Amino acid sequence: MRFDRVWFNARLATLKGDGLGTVESGAVAAKDGRIAFVGPENDLSNGWEAAERIDCQGRWITPGLVDCHTHLVFGGDRAHEFELRLNGASYEEIARAGGGIVSTVKATRAASEDELVASALPRLDHLIAEGCTTIEIKSGYGLDLETEARSLRVARRLAEERPASVVTTFLGAHALPPEANGDKDAFIDKVCREMLPALAREGLADAVDAFCEGIAFSPEQTARVFDAAKAHGLRVKLHADQLSNLHGAKLAAEYGALSADHLEYTDEDGAAAMAKAGTVAVLLPGAFYMLRETKLPPVAAFRRHGTRMALATDCNPGTSPLTSLLLTMNMGATLFRMTVEECIAGVTREAARALGHLDEIGTLETGKSCDLAIWNIERPAELVYRIGFNPLHARIWRGQ
Amino acid sequence: MRFDRVWFNARLATLKGDGLGTVESGAVAAKDGRIAFVGPENDLSNGWEAAERIDCQGRWITPGLVDCHTHLVFGGDRAHEFELRLNGASYEEIARAGGGIVSTVKATRAASEDELVASALPRLDHLIAEGCTTIEIKSGYGLDLETEARSLRVARRLAEERPASVVTTFLGAHALPPEANGDKDAFIDKVCREMLPALAREGLADAVDAFCEGIAFSPEQTARVFDAAKAHGLRVKLHADQLSNLHGAKLAAEYGALSADHLEYTDEDGAAAMAKAGTVAVLLPGAFYMLRETKLPPVAAFRRHGTRMALATDCNPGTSPLTSLLLTMNMGATLFRMTVEECIAGVTREAARALGHLDEIGTLETGKSCDLAIWNIERPAELVYRIGFNPLHARIWRGQ
Ligand SMILES: [Zn+2]
Ligand SMILES: [Zn+2]
Repeated sequence: MRFDRVWFNARLATLKGDGLGTVESGAVAAKDGRIAFVGPENDLSNGWEAAERIDCQGRWITPGLVDCHTHLVFGGDRAHEFELRLNGASYEEIARAGGGIVSTVKATRAASEDELVASALPRLDHLIAEGCTTIEIKSGYGLDLETEARSLRVARRLAEERPASVVTTFLGAHALPPEANGDKDAFIDKVCREMLPALAREGLADAVDAFCEGIAFSPEQTARVFDAAKAHGLRVKLHADQLSNLHGAKLAAEYGALSADHLEYTDEDGAAAMAKAGTVAVLLPGAFYMLRETKLPPVAAFRRHGTRMALATDCNPGTSPLTSLLLTMNMGATLFRMTVEECIAGVTREAARALGHLDEIGTLETGKSCDLAIWNIERPAELVYRIGFNPLHARIWRGQ
Repeated sequence: MRFDRVWFNARLATLKGDGLGTVESGAVAAKDGRIAFVGPENDLSNGWEAAERIDCQGRWITPGLVDCHTHLVFGGDRAHEFELRLNGASYEEIARAGGGIVSTVKATRAASEDELVASALPRLDHLIAEGCTTIEIKSGYGLDLETEARSLRVARRLAEERPASVVTTFLGAHALPPEANGDKDAFIDKVCREMLPALAREGLADAVDAFCEGIAFSPEQTARVFDAAKAHGLRVKLHADQLSNLHGAKLAAEYGALSADHLEYTDEDGAAAMAKAGTVAVLLPGAFYMLRETKLPPVAAFRRHGTRMALATDCNPGTSPLTSLLLTMNMGATLFRMTVEECIAGVTREAARALGHLDEIGTLETGKSCDLAIWNIERPAELVYRIGFNPLHARIWRGQ
């Protein structure tokens, strides 16, 4: 067998199956960007050749990390609003000073495609510097067809600018734009009849998301978005049960959603429905931390029912300006009491599952894309335990 | 005037006085490692020359960051203990598996000077990568003269291995070593009569610290350590009121301590006494976060009394494996509701004050060491607002 590259003398966390799938004295081989061999070094058949052989000197290799929930593309900056709030400013004062999601919508609408690319790249680069190889990016700061389309085109362009895979999600039902004058139903009409069909036609959205919450859209409005997505052959996911229990998790499960995300207020029923439907629970501790929430997502219920759990940054300017999956894992453990295995699986195998791409990424298995993170660590737990530290040694995307 | 280097076209947060001390269109000039000019570019007198001119293109310059409370030098690793605890292991099971501070003491005693340097360097490098130029390092995992001396020598050596200033602190009264058989008074005797005099003689300790807490040492035992420090001409500081109110803050103030640290349980009296004595309140949100504490330090009382507040990582293997001052600032704001100004001052001016070195570092003022951090940001608030992000453009230590 002739490989392009072989990494040997490594310890592997393949994530195959249910645990970490560890292999001591392991090797990974790439051919044409795919994993052509992974396993104990001794199982590499005799007589293999490789254009390049890399001695990992005992380092750990995991699948490249997957950030399965981000709002990475947006205009403007909310640092000043953060500052005002700490100074005790009221919501009115902040709104007058141009704060809140509306300020991000305005700035995103005003930004050109190139400007949006330029502002998103440093955020993407920080994720990449920590071994991230696939990232999901939602629209949702345009709230009109033109800007939603531009945001999704920017997301696609980021994948050309950097060696990383991007999965896009149309999140038109994120918030009500100012020009809707409070008419949520009319805006949902627009999302379903104008925006979604046009974006689907252009192939700009890989999936469709909505924000089901008292401050956003109702379960009924969410269901209309999901019906429209279905009609266009697109899978759905949902911002659900973050601030109250509107049974969004259950609704998502009923629609066979890829994932339901946040889930602080999800109940036993919702957890059970998700497990049955194969809907992944995407937990977002960055927003929980930033908002100083105290209601924990029902991790024990997810375990009881076998609901899969992923972790993501939720990178966004208002409630989670977080660009570190390593820190996300630490928050998952520290704040949500997830185990080391759950945290590592949450940003690899389960995150890939939440994107519907487990056949392609998320574990080290023959035939999958050769996306690797190689770490200067003595044991996988270090990835979760350390805070504000980056032990990445090398990152491989599609075999390179 | 002939300078070595001039940074121009910059925005400055000098931290001079009480606020951020911002200067638009500013410049900083270095000569012989010191700040020879700082202020509006227009105030640079005509006819200056410089061996090197650096166009900062509008970037922000702050003083180099100061981490004024760390336990950076230790042997071993507690990631496995962290993992066991998340898996639900009891304290006994963890102790049996070799966890707890005793495991760090054992590993530190078993490590050579070179090994301790090698294991500390990646932690120091991460701090440096975020613009840290001065770091305090405590002993306290040796708990016998030989290992305490070795730990402090390692701290001094780190300053030779990297372009960074190190300030050392002897923390013999950190915990009771196993061989003390529970006799705290006898161990404090040893700290005061054997360890402290020997380390002072060798010039290895710049200050003396203790851990005053139910699980550690009493106020009386702490006072004995402070008396011994005084007798050897060394300033003191204290781990105080972290888990209960033993009035450690007040005790520290009575001894004119440089700082009292943690302070979650400090009361109004303690805050007032600290302000009067000029003792800095060093807040450590990393440990608060990791231990999932809910009792907040009395930030409002510190403000009322004018107690100075610093922020530090408390980098240590058991309760704060944190090596990011940027994240520490975000935690200060998010968890403790400190303002942006307080957070930035907390890792510059006030941290320098907590080390007794405000005459030398911590602000951009003529005559001080030219320690700079140059940032790719639009406003200082970004340093505090973003989570898991490093916008450092360049770091200057002693003019280089
Ligand atoms: Zn989100
Ligand atoms: Zn400490």
